[in-house]
Amino acid sequence: MTVETAPHVEPEHDPGTPEHETHAGHEGHGTPEGHEGHEGHEGHHHGYHADKAALLARLRRVEGQVRGIARMVDEDTYCIDVLTQVSAATRALENVALLLLEDHLAHCVRDAAVAGGPEADEKLAEASAAIARLVRS
Amino acid sequence: MTVETAPHVEPEHDPGTPEHETHAGHEGHGTPEGHEGHEGHEGHHHGYHADKAALLARLRRVEGQVRGIARMVDEDTYCIDVLTQVSAATRALENVALLLLEDHLAHCVRDAAVAGGPEADEKLAEASAAIARLVRS
Amino acid sequence: MTVETAPHVEPEHDPGTPEHETHAGHEGHGTPEGHEGHEGHEGHHHGYHADKAALLARLRRVEGQVRGIARMVDEDTYCIDVLTQVSAATRALENVALLLLEDHLAHCVRDAAVAGGPEADEKLAEASAAIARLVRS
Amino acid sequence: MTVETAPHVEPEHDPGTPEHETHAGHEGHGTPEGHEGHEGHEGHHHGYHADKAALLARLRRVEGQVRGIARMVDEDTYCIDVLTQVSAATRALENVALLLLEDHLAHCVRDAAVAGGPEADEKLAEASAAIARLVRS
Repeated sequence: MTVETAPHVEPEHDPGTPEHETHAGHEGHGTPEGHEGHEGHEGHHHGYHADKAALLARLRRVEGQVRGIARMVDEDTYCIDVLTQVSAATRALENVALLLLEDHLAHCVRDAAVAGGPEADEKLAEASAAIARLVRS
Repeated sequence: MTVETAPHVEPEHDPGTPEHETHAGHEGHGTPEGHEGHEGHEGHHHGYHADKAALLARLRRVEGQVRGIARMVDEDTYCIDVLTQVSAATRALENVALLLLEDHLAHCVRDAAVAGGPEADEKLAEASAAIARLVRS
Repeated sequence: MTVETAPHVEPEHDPGTPEHETHAGHEGHGTPEGHEGHEGHEGHHHGYHADKAALLARLRRVEGQVRGIARMVDEDTYCIDVLTQVSAATRALENVALLLLEDHLAHCVRDAAVAGGPEADEKLAEASAAIARLVRS
Repeated sequence: MTVETAPHVEPEHDPGTPEHETHAGHEGHGTPEGHEGHEGHEGHHHGYHADKAALLARLRRVEGQVRGIARMVDEDTYCIDVLTQVSAATRALENVALLLLEDHLAHCVRDAAVAGGPEADEKLAEASAAIARLVRS
């Protein structure tokens, strides 16, 4: 069974700094040229490049929602009203994830499939694992 | 079938200001005394009163996570790494919701059940609807 | 955070026989009288008693859906069409769970709250744990 | 936000017969040869072909679980014990969906990406929509 997936992923701390180094190699910092892969062609960066502004706007709104929820708690707002907002913010985050995933499939995974080889297998396995984490979160 | 629940809930905008007025009456500001119910006994306000500090700390961390995700997107972090953080933030929000709900059941709903009458029915129906929104979000 | 979930629950085997003995005591078979609690008043059995026929009808339909999905796989139906049916069956099961939960809150939990004492605390904690399992499944 | 989901999918009826005709063309019945696409190469049928036996075994187990749940309801088993089994069956179905999806990406979507053209775009959009249905179910 796959249930026990163990998404042993970063609990609840600000992921801003350390985490996004995880795949530092992917970002190509320090590999000024010659790397190819999900960043190589035509200078685009990642699958979500075209939706970057939309993603940032959505994330800003989610951040505002979460801050609004904290304010509600701080002001002793009725539990059910707080819960309603938490559900809305959760759904908004899921929609961010679905947009990221759609872009990832349509660019990174697609490009890897066309290129073929073990990288294609790897990208597909990685995408499936991300989908599983999302479905189970 | 209940699927079509229609969670016609606030999309993705900062809920800070308008929404938490929805049940303004519940907060009892301006009803300086005499009312009882989810606020009545011993001056506590809502089910989550005892967990208020913990909830605020968690929400602050989620807010930091979401801000960190925006930074990752802004810096063109690899899609899958961004997705991993979005899944983590989603789970963190779900845990906030579960704590709120647990407190709500253990205080507001319980008190309403003991008091009995139509308010008890109403509180139970309201809690079930909130659970449904949560399960489907 | 999420870790404490521990849904160490029965994977995918037919639960028909052993599991429903888990809380055998709750069913009160063999304790012909004198027990009270979630079964005590007016001879009704559990929270979902009034919805029993509806629940059985829904479960029968879900069983048919799952059998239909197996047939689709057996006949090499296109993946996406199979997935659509799996999503529909999953949602149908969630709706069964939500109805069970609503009935449980409105009867067993409510009665326990009215009766008070440690059993009330226990019932509330148990309901919250069931909700968490459901939200995370 | 969430609204655009449009899961206008078959509610809770046995999908066995009509639904799996939806994409009849995909199955290639009646187009005895010359069709290409997700079935064309080397006689394999769909992405999940290699996992067909495993999928059928899992679905049979889920069917048994659902039948077991109906039996529990019929025998007035304690609500929470029934709910535990419903959560387990839901998770089992999700795992079936994740396996189907993984296979679909690794075969049908990959092949379409390699072949290129509008069919590739279509397959990718279709996969993303299926993932969204799954995440939201």
